[in-house]
Amino acid sequence: MTTGFFDGIAPVTFKGPETDDPLAFRHYDPDETVMGKRMEDHLRFAVAWWHSFAWEGGDPFGGQTFERPWYPQDSMDAARRKADAAFEMFEILGQPFFCWHDVDLRPDQGNFADNLATLNEITDYIADRMKTARTRCLWGTANMFSHRRWMAGAATNPDPDVFAFSAATVKSCLDATHKLGGSNYVLWGGREGYETLLNTDMGRELDHMGRFLAMVVDYKHKIGFKGQILVEPKPQEPSKHQYDYDAATCIGFLRKYGLENEVKLNLEQGHAILAGHSFEHELAVAASEGMLGSIDMNRNDYQSGWDTDQFPNNVPEVALAYYHVLKAGGFTQGGTNFDAKLRRQSLDAEDLIAAHVGGMDTCARGLKAAAAMIEDGGLEDALRDRYRDWDTDAAKSMLHSDLGAIAQRVLDENIAPEPRSGRQERLENYVNRFV
Amino acid sequence: MTTGFFDGIAPVTFKGPETDDPLAFRHYDPDETVMGKRMEDHLRFAVAWWHSFAWEGGDPFGGQTFERPWYPQDSMDAARRKADAAFEMFEILGQPFFCWHDVDLRPDQGNFADNLATLNEITDYIADRMKTARTRCLWGTANMFSHRRWMAGAATNPDPDVFAFSAATVKSCLDATHKLGGSNYVLWGGREGYETLLNTDMGRELDHMGRFLAMVVDYKHKIGFKGQILVEPKPQEPSKHQYDYDAATCIGFLRKYGLENEVKLNLEQGHAILAGHSFEHELAVAASEGMLGSIDMNRNDYQSGWDTDQFPNNVPEVALAYYHVLKAGGFTQGGTNFDAKLRRQSLDAEDLIAAHVGGMDTCARGLKAAAAMIEDGGLEDALRDRYRDWDTDAAKSMLHSDLGAIAQRVLDENIAPEPRSGRQERLENYVNRFV
Amino acid sequence: MTTGFFDGIAPVTFKGPETDDPLAFRHYDPDETVMGKRMEDHLRFAVAWWHSFAWEGGDPFGGQTFERPWYPQDSMDAARRKADAAFEMFEILGQPFFCWHDVDLRPDQGNFADNLATLNEITDYIADRMKTARTRCLWGTANMFSHRRWMAGAATNPDPDVFAFSAATVKSCLDATHKLGGSNYVLWGGREGYETLLNTDMGRELDHMGRFLAMVVDYKHKIGFKGQILVEPKPQEPSKHQYDYDAATCIGFLRKYGLENEVKLNLEQGHAILAGHSFEHELAVAASEGMLGSIDMNRNDYQSGWDTDQFPNNVPEVALAYYHVLKAGGFTQGGTNFDAKLRRQSLDAEDLIAAHVGGMDTCARGLKAAAAMIEDGGLEDALRDRYRDWDTDAAKSMLHSDLGAIAQRVLDENIAPEPRSGRQERLENYVNRFV
Amino acid sequence: MTTGFFDGIAPVTFKGPETDDPLAFRHYDPDETVMGKRMEDHLRFAVAWWHSFAWEGGDPFGGQTFERPWYPQDSMDAARRKADAAFEMFEILGQPFFCWHDVDLRPDQGNFADNLATLNEITDYIADRMKTARTRCLWGTANMFSHRRWMAGAATNPDPDVFAFSAATVKSCLDATHKLGGSNYVLWGGREGYETLLNTDMGRELDHMGRFLAMVVDYKHKIGFKGQILVEPKPQEPSKHQYDYDAATCIGFLRKYGLENEVKLNLEQGHAILAGHSFEHELAVAASEGMLGSIDMNRNDYQSGWDTDQFPNNVPEVALAYYHVLKAGGFTQGGTNFDAKLRRQSLDAEDLIAAHVGGMDTCARGLKAAAAMIEDGGLEDALRDRYRDWDTDAAKSMLHSDLGAIAQRVLDENIAPEPRSGRQERLENYVNRFV
Repeated sequence: MTTGFFDGIAPVTFKGPETDDPLAFRHYDPDETVMGKRMEDHLRFAVAWWHSFAWEGGDPFGGQTFERPWYPQDSMDAARRKADAAFEMFEILGQPFFCWHDVDLRPDQGNFADNLATLNEITDYIADRMKTARTRCLWGTANMFSHRRWMAGAATNPDPDVFAFSAATVKSCLDATHKLGGSNYVLWGGREGYETLLNTDMGRELDHMGRFLAMVVDYKHKIGFKGQILVEPKPQEPSKHQYDYDAATCIGFLRKYGLENEVKLNLEQGHAILAGHSFEHELAVAASEGMLGSIDMNRNDYQSGWDTDQFPNNVPEVALAYYHVLKAGGFTQGGTNFDAKLRRQSLDAEDLIAAHVGGMDTCARGLKAAAAMIEDGGLEDALRDRYRDWDTDAAKSMLHSDLGAIAQRVLDENIAPEPRSGRQERLENYVNRFV
Repeated sequence: MTTGFFDGIAPVTFKGPETDDPLAFRHYDPDETVMGKRMEDHLRFAVAWWHSFAWEGGDPFGGQTFERPWYPQDSMDAARRKADAAFEMFEILGQPFFCWHDVDLRPDQGNFADNLATLNEITDYIADRMKTARTRCLWGTANMFSHRRWMAGAATNPDPDVFAFSAATVKSCLDATHKLGGSNYVLWGGREGYETLLNTDMGRELDHMGRFLAMVVDYKHKIGFKGQILVEPKPQEPSKHQYDYDAATCIGFLRKYGLENEVKLNLEQGHAILAGHSFEHELAVAASEGMLGSIDMNRNDYQSGWDTDQFPNNVPEVALAYYHVLKAGGFTQGGTNFDAKLRRQSLDAEDLIAAHVGGMDTCARGLKAAAAMIEDGGLEDALRDRYRDWDTDAAKSMLHSDLGAIAQRVLDENIAPEPRSGRQERLENYVNRFV
Repeated sequence: MTTGFFDGIAPVTFKGPETDDPLAFRHYDPDETVMGKRMEDHLRFAVAWWHSFAWEGGDPFGGQTFERPWYPQDSMDAARRKADAAFEMFEILGQPFFCWHDVDLRPDQGNFADNLATLNEITDYIADRMKTARTRCLWGTANMFSHRRWMAGAATNPDPDVFAFSAATVKSCLDATHKLGGSNYVLWGGREGYETLLNTDMGRELDHMGRFLAMVVDYKHKIGFKGQILVEPKPQEPSKHQYDYDAATCIGFLRKYGLENEVKLNLEQGHAILAGHSFEHELAVAASEGMLGSIDMNRNDYQSGWDTDQFPNNVPEVALAYYHVLKAGGFTQGGTNFDAKLRRQSLDAEDLIAAHVGGMDTCARGLKAAAAMIEDGGLEDALRDRYRDWDTDAAKSMLHSDLGAIAQRVLDENIAPEPRSGRQERLENYVNRFV
Repeated sequence: MTTGFFDGIAPVTFKGPETDDPLAFRHYDPDETVMGKRMEDHLRFAVAWWHSFAWEGGDPFGGQTFERPWYPQDSMDAARRKADAAFEMFEILGQPFFCWHDVDLRPDQGNFADNLATLNEITDYIADRMKTARTRCLWGTANMFSHRRWMAGAATNPDPDVFAFSAATVKSCLDATHKLGGSNYVLWGGREGYETLLNTDMGRELDHMGRFLAMVVDYKHKIGFKGQILVEPKPQEPSKHQYDYDAATCIGFLRKYGLENEVKLNLEQGHAILAGHSFEHELAVAASEGMLGSIDMNRNDYQSGWDTDQFPNNVPEVALAYYHVLKAGGFTQGGTNFDAKLRRQSLDAEDLIAAHVGGMDTCARGLKAAAAMIEDGGLEDALRDRYRDWDTDAAKSMLHSDLGAIAQRVLDENIAPEPRSGRQERLENYVNRFV
């Protein structure tokens, strides 16, 4: 027996680029080999429980637009029906992974004891469903931004009791992730920041946040959780300023608190855009520090100043993202989580399936283009050529020299460097050969 | 004999808020005591040689609009005339400090030997003028972004010869700053970044930039320069991305390369805005790390996406900036540099004087309001009250506890925190009592 | 008997700038005469029913934070309690006006017949309260963006039945506004726009919107409503694009559909900012066309890309806004509606009062500064001087000449214009003498 | 004899998608038939004289980076050399059109008589070159923003003498465009706007601008110029605000001054982005009013707040642009002008060719995808289906009804519309089948 929500929608299969079946994969063939690995194992797609099952279509100016068999989401019965629908969709899509916040799975109960009990109950139910499904848990996380108790932060709250409640909540969610065999545990601090500096002691709050994260790392080791601990940058929204502003800021924070070898980053396209960066910038920053953990794949509207979390559809942009992922060695424990939501006018079950199909196809095209560029080697060759003079012994020894010696050499040798073309357009054209 | 440029403009004096003399100070009285210190010694105003004397009124869509007795700026004669005009303006304004790039003082000569000789020549000339003037050097810096040799970066250039030329140039400018008794030496990396990641090895470039800065610090100590070494964040413009994106990014960079105790930040309002921050945010970030070195005071147009570098005129905003400066202990070696330029339609000598007068008055009002808030203590009281529960022994010991113990306590004590008002509007109203 | 919500808060009175009473007016003295008119009659303050009484503190990442005696807002009993609280607040603040959407006053009933009946019921209740209160209705409006039936637009919906439902709804709200003696009726089209052009026939939708507005105007005349019909520009949010983008776009729309003499604009600071404009720009555009009807006074956070609707607190900005209002003749039927909401952490009744007190004081300071500038005349003098050459007969006749004749004159007279300073900084300094 | 600049670069030919020749067309085959028309005749590519030949690589923080045989551009000899190089490039690219400002062709001489004489001289020279070339003039325009005389506007200058100089200049450029057989004449008002409202009489300036444009239209008819008169929207840069803000604002302006049947729009991707719009939005707005005249094809960096004018390289975006062009009937007199400049590090002749090749290929792919979507009809079908209920007689008659009648019908029929899915993701997936 099913929830009925997806009635009439058959499992989505690969039919190739020429099909006009709107619910078939045109590019995503899980078993196709790309750079020696199955496409599915490269991309490691995950469905986000929140957008796909918990979000009801509201925005700041309007309420629920969707109608689902598991609404209202106020009971454990509804929570189980929602889980059933989720597994139905996983099966339709052949989805290998899912991600969740605690409150996506079951409603907040208002106190920790009941939160804990119901979280255990629903994750037992999900674990049971996983026995007959192929879909695994990519990551879990705690929603510490929706309930009013967290309005002024979780780990950075001025009230130590909220810190305590947060610690207990993360413990419960990390335990649940561990139980579900999750590959990662994520922390996104939507309320770890401020609305106004007038009432904020930023240094103190950052120290608390550093200490909190250290406790999470300790607890991970204590329980033998082998997944990655990931923090997810976002510059603002809901807060005016969030401390995990972008990749560089997070990395500086981790280094300050001695966590740079324990924690990696979960990077999102939409959050990169809000921080004034391209997605590939954030990926390159994290990769250059060895801290690229996982990605939230979505797309922000370039004309909207908030997080629109749309399904990706621009292949050239996605290709550059996967180029950086592949250059960094590809995903090991991380993956591609569709942190993307339907437009609120997309009411139908078919919309939900089509959105994932389109996103998966876009990613598949991006991945294949990225792999082709890596195999062709054109970009790496250009890079090697551009920096070639730094590979000389003279250049290397200059780096360990001093201003006085260098200045003398500039004078003695009358060094007057002549610029060389950066060839940007030629490299952009090169990329366009693959996308 | 004078350059004639300021003919007919008398020295600017303090006449009080009621005056309608457009070229008198209405609020800036250098000798007025604020929090036990002369206002001049708090604010430590500096004129920027580039905007006030070297910039000719051009923008991306139009050329020179100004006409000055020291144009064209292509000779050492013109350079001396420009310096003469500068000292005339310093005297009119009673300006205590000035700041400069090498190419503001004299034109780039195309090779290092001549650059060095002419830099020495013009700074000797300036040193001579300083003997009879009260104006000191707040900081010097090297312009390593205008000449085409630097189009792809200075310390981060793919060509090691440009790194060498840059090292020699910084040495010459640091020597000159030392000779002029400068209080600081600043590095702003307008081309230290990238136009496209396609041709950029970010990790390698950052390593070079870190090594470069370490050499600068070493050289400072070698020559006994006691001033601060400052880096100046800016997220973009002229480059698509600049590595010194914002305060947090710079601090992370400094920590990575072990320079966090040697280098501080020079923060600018306009650059903060471009990075998506308020000015007080950047100041608070730097202050919370003990790295607030100096400020570039200007104002960006909130509707323009580039650096407009206007003279400040919004007292409430400036007051919040100085509030953070004063909370951090005020300036020691740093100061308030007017990194602000006339609008290109403001053609007259009188415009240049009026702009500084207006900016100085705005800062004076801001400083006095900030001092009044500090003396009143209302914001600090509110802060202390908001975080008061963290001062308990229980809260402090929790920070050194672990997730398991905390979760158990939350269960045992049924901790269910009730939120308290953040009182933002009341605090904003409080600030409005002072501005 | 009262709702109890404001218990312990006394009526707010004017105590002058020196008071440190956080709940007293420091600048707003309703009876003070400014340019020959009472301050209250200039500013015509209004409280917004939605933000102050209907909004529960939610944002896209979190739910209700406030707790009010009239929650949950799902019954007519609650609606009456809410109205009671509103009138209690009006009395505390001495507020002369209020503004409302239908769904602020009572919940949407799901069908038009019940919507109509309950709207009549609650507005009768309010009319009754108004008998013993001094607070009047500044304007009413229909919320045609929150309920899911309007997800794809009201007048611009692809479904004609939604157009019909919208027409009926506006009729009911205009009738209610008329009954309550409202001075204006406002239309804000939060869903009149699109999420994607892929599913949108823009030209057709605009024609429908033009026709809809014409019907509203006709109906106004039919029932003898003497208030202004106002449209309110906003560029986006909630939609990706809204047709009433900004003042210039609205005016173009009105002119296209022949409504430029029937409809004026209600302009909001936050909406101006989102459209890439300063508030004074929007005011100047509307004023230059004689279409400045009323204002929504609030403040957007310059670092946030969405509508933050904060209470105004920056006096220099507010002063420039009122300068344009006064230059345009001041408000006749329009007023200053606080379309501003508490921060969601500002939980207490005292926050709500303090926010309005601070906003009213900010506006009072702005108004007085604006009036002083107008009475001093410095800006008008500068303007007259700058354009003086256009007042000559030669210049006027040139405007009615042609390119050939003008070109010949340029040749004959060798016209080679020399630019004159725009004096921007001097004008900005002038403004700072008043704020 | 040639300028030598392009020595060694062969004419670019179509070699198909599989070629790895970086200087061959992979998609642009001028003779390929698309929707019954040659691709060349659809796209009508033009090279922009300014970016490709006059711009020297400067930006606000640095000067010239390029080195060209026609530098320095201060003589008529250089102007002819530049024209020679232009025609060499047109031949290499098989370029059908070019566009120009007067000062791109020859330097401003400082007075009108000499400007006129040298403009005639250089356009005679170009006309002569055109006798043996296939490249035609798409449009000409006057640069009335670079010289200091225009710092405060051209038609909107407070000085009537500048208005006169502008009128004479446009006359000379329109005459020259007519002589060269141009298909359009464009006006872009980079300084028609303001830096500060404090010194600006907006209403008066707009009236002058309206009158100026009317004179241009009159003169066009007088001389029998059959080309389109186009205005080009841009919201800001170089001015703080430009009156021709975006398509909707321009259309409103044209309608106000009775020019809506005489003037069309030249729309640019980069300018759309700066105004907060997608390119297809601007195209759709103009098309819905029948005012889509021509396009400036380029690409702005989404993370930069200024006009980056990069060569287009994102096929999905370009395809949507051409979809709107084709839906509007395609270009008649207009075309695709590459208002795009090299990155300033792209120093080589080969960069200039490659940039155009890449841009042309991107447009060719976009055009073919757009044509395929139109021929498939899927988007039009979806649109027709979504609005189908508006095609009923009942719906049409409702539009000519009134609020009272409609409200009564809603009551009588208990109209309670149920929303239907907007199907955005399915439509986006559909587009991705073609790009």
